[in-house]
Amino acid sequence: MIMDNFTMYNPTALHFGKDIIQKLAGVMKSYGRRVLLVYGKGSIKNNGIYEQVMHQLRLAGAEVFEYSGIKSNPIVEDVDAAAKLGRENNVDVVLAIGGGSVIDSAKVISITIPVQHSAWDFYSDKAKPVKAVPLIAVLTLAATGTEMNMFSVIQNHQEGRKAGWGHKLMYPAHSFLDPSFTFSVPADYTAYGIADLIAHCLENYFGKAEASLTDRFIFSIIAEAVDNADGVLDEPLNYDYRANIMYAATAALNGLTSFGKGMGDWGVHSIGHVLSLLYDIPHGASLTIVYPAWMKFHQNVLDEKIGRLGKAVFGSQNSEQAIHSFENFFSSIGCPVKLQDVGIGLDKKEEILKGLKHNRVQGSIYKFTDAQLEELLELMYG
Amino acid sequence: MIMDNFTMYNPTALHFGKDIIQKLAGVMKSYGRRVLLVYGKGSIKNNGIYEQVMHQLRLAGAEVFEYSGIKSNPIVEDVDAAAKLGRENNVDVVLAIGGGSVIDSAKVISITIPVQHSAWDFYSDKAKPVKAVPLIAVLTLAATGTEMNMFSVIQNHQEGRKAGWGHKLMYPAHSFLDPSFTFSVPADYTAYGIADLIAHCLENYFGKAEASLTDRFIFSIIAEAVDNADGVLDEPLNYDYRANIMYAATAALNGLTSFGKGMGDWGVHSIGHVLSLLYDIPHGASLTIVYPAWMKFHQNVLDEKIGRLGKAVFGSQNSEQAIHSFENFFSSIGCPVKLQDVGIGLDKKEEILKGLKHNRVQGSIYKFTDAQLEELLELMYG
Repeated sequence: MIMDNFTMYNPTALHFGKDIIQKLAGVMKSYGRRVLLVYGKGSIKNNGIYEQVMHQLRLAGAEVFEYSGIKSNPIVEDVDAAAKLGRENNVDVVLAIGGGSVIDSAKVISITIPVQHSAWDFYSDKAKPVKAVPLIAVLTLAATGTEMNMFSVIQNHQEGRKAGWGHKLMYPAHSFLDPSFTFSVPADYTAYGIADLIAHCLENYFGKAEASLTDRFIFSIIAEAVDNADGVLDEPLNYDYRANIMYAATAALNGLTSFGKGMGDWGVHSIGHVLSLLYDIPHGASLTIVYPAWMKFHQNVLDEKIGRLGKAVFGSQNSEQAIHSFENFFSSIGCPVKLQDVGIGLDKKEEILKGLKHNRVQGSIYKFTDAQLEELLELMYG
Repeated sequence: MIMDNFTMYNPTALHFGKDIIQKLAGVMKSYGRRVLLVYGKGSIKNNGIYEQVMHQLRLAGAEVFEYSGIKSNPIVEDVDAAAKLGRENNVDVVLAIGGGSVIDSAKVISITIPVQHSAWDFYSDKAKPVKAVPLIAVLTLAATGTEMNMFSVIQNHQEGRKAGWGHKLMYPAHSFLDPSFTFSVPADYTAYGIADLIAHCLENYFGKAEASLTDRFIFSIIAEAVDNADGVLDEPLNYDYRANIMYAATAALNGLTSFGKGMGDWGVHSIGHVLSLLYDIPHGASLTIVYPAWMKFHQNVLDEKIGRLGKAVFGSQNSEQAIHSFENFFSSIGCPVKLQDVGIGLDKKEEILKGLKHNRVQGSIYKFTDAQLEELLELMYG
């Protein structure tokens, strides 16, 4: 069982820790003074993060152009509008404050500023990025790992698609992670973040090739998330729990869980994206609905692999116990594990199936026929 | 128990896998045509690696200036002479083929080429590096992790010192790791490499701060090394075992084992360096003599930490069992665990003690008085 060839290379400088934002002004200065500031619905103005960042920008003598209102399932219209603002003001750097949706958007903004077409042209393979305005990210949610990778997920309602895509120009130049910046994240989104990081480990774990040390790292990250979940939900202001979860989320998708494993499967993500697109379900919540069903569907083929995973993380005895352990864990932290848990009844079955087909959901390894998609959907209803 | 702030940043592009050397020509071309080729005592001419690299250099149209003969405990005279050769020939890139000693030397050569003084001035803090000729490394030994970090250890016989030092200009730009390039490494050096990578994990594990995910990664790497040791020694031509050990060695010292833990202790390394300096003991072998003694010396203070480590790696019940397990494991793969095992008798005691004092051996956390050094030395004799 040979491991796949791989390249380890990650140009992002990630600064992690208490009061780490104090390094921002110094870093910012090295890029220039004209800053496009991108954020979401303004919660950063209530929890003090906006003011801390603005203080750094003043120290750096920055001229700031703001684009706010990025949605939690980000849309291409916002990306295009923000890129236009950045282009017209000839910005030197993009500064994103937020979670996955804001930073994902900012990544695409940074490669769209230098061009004249819509960002969606990159996603639909009509254009290739040629350069990027440097991106600095300030993370406020431990979940997607976007702070240290080249991937971005956005959606296009006109085309009814939500798609993930990556390019090496989209690595943030710098990311700032202060675990205390996640203190005000509510319990539900904290849990969705934990689910998301675990799902990233799983997508890579179910990759084609075998790489034993990478598997150990995957088990380590999942176990770390599981072991810190109750703590962070019970004590949201506890720095240690927040720090452990935040680092786990970065490690889950910065390359470490994929070296030697090939490209991972990512079928569950593509299915989850359709649920988010249709019903605006938070990304992490969509994954906890799909993953147990996906593992049940593939249980025979993946018996050994699921069993080994469950043993390492939960001490379970076989693949069936392993799947139940994941399902129980997700439930225990308040995540939905059935479509009914988010209020989606059987009457939506045809609509979902149509969306799955339209978005051509497929893992890179485990493919689905239309009939199998229906079978999987049954399992998601439970 | 708060984790330390940290920055994750590693500019090395590491290319790992079977026949990965075929990417060298393309990478090489982007740096220029004038190449300083650095290697050791010529074993690469017997195992075919030299010819494979030369083929790539011809494809890249390179003009090659060779410096060979780097010693396994590398000396500053070689570094200075190679830097002179590179300087006089105005090279665009340094290409190192070898293990830790060659690549460590090449790192210092790459920052010494642009200056007029001895490389030792960097080690003795008389000069600071200002720029580096880009370095490309082709690794032939899984051990030190030098292929993806900024550290280098060289020795100066005139001053009776062997010292480790690091600078961010010393990261290799690219490293090429083909596990089959380690097929011809003999059993003893294969074992010393395993010991070395485990020691790197331990130096970081015994760092000041607590970082639970980093500890899990440390346990993962040590367990991976332990679990693959018999295999790689029994079947030296087995790609999988070689690959698992090779990746473990990189992961042990590319940052992953230190994030959030602070700087690590490194007292054992500084003591081991003195043994290598005085008696030309291979680096890995010096560490397996020192580490069991060091853990015994600190057993009371580190009871919980050593116990937790032993449980995770060997399933041992307490710190005493844990130390014995490490000692037994090192012995089982043919590494010395007592000074007598490498033929150093009690008559050398004073000489060693003098060397330890002269080199001011100290961990960054666990310090030794002169009396304690003597006590530690007793434990190394067993």
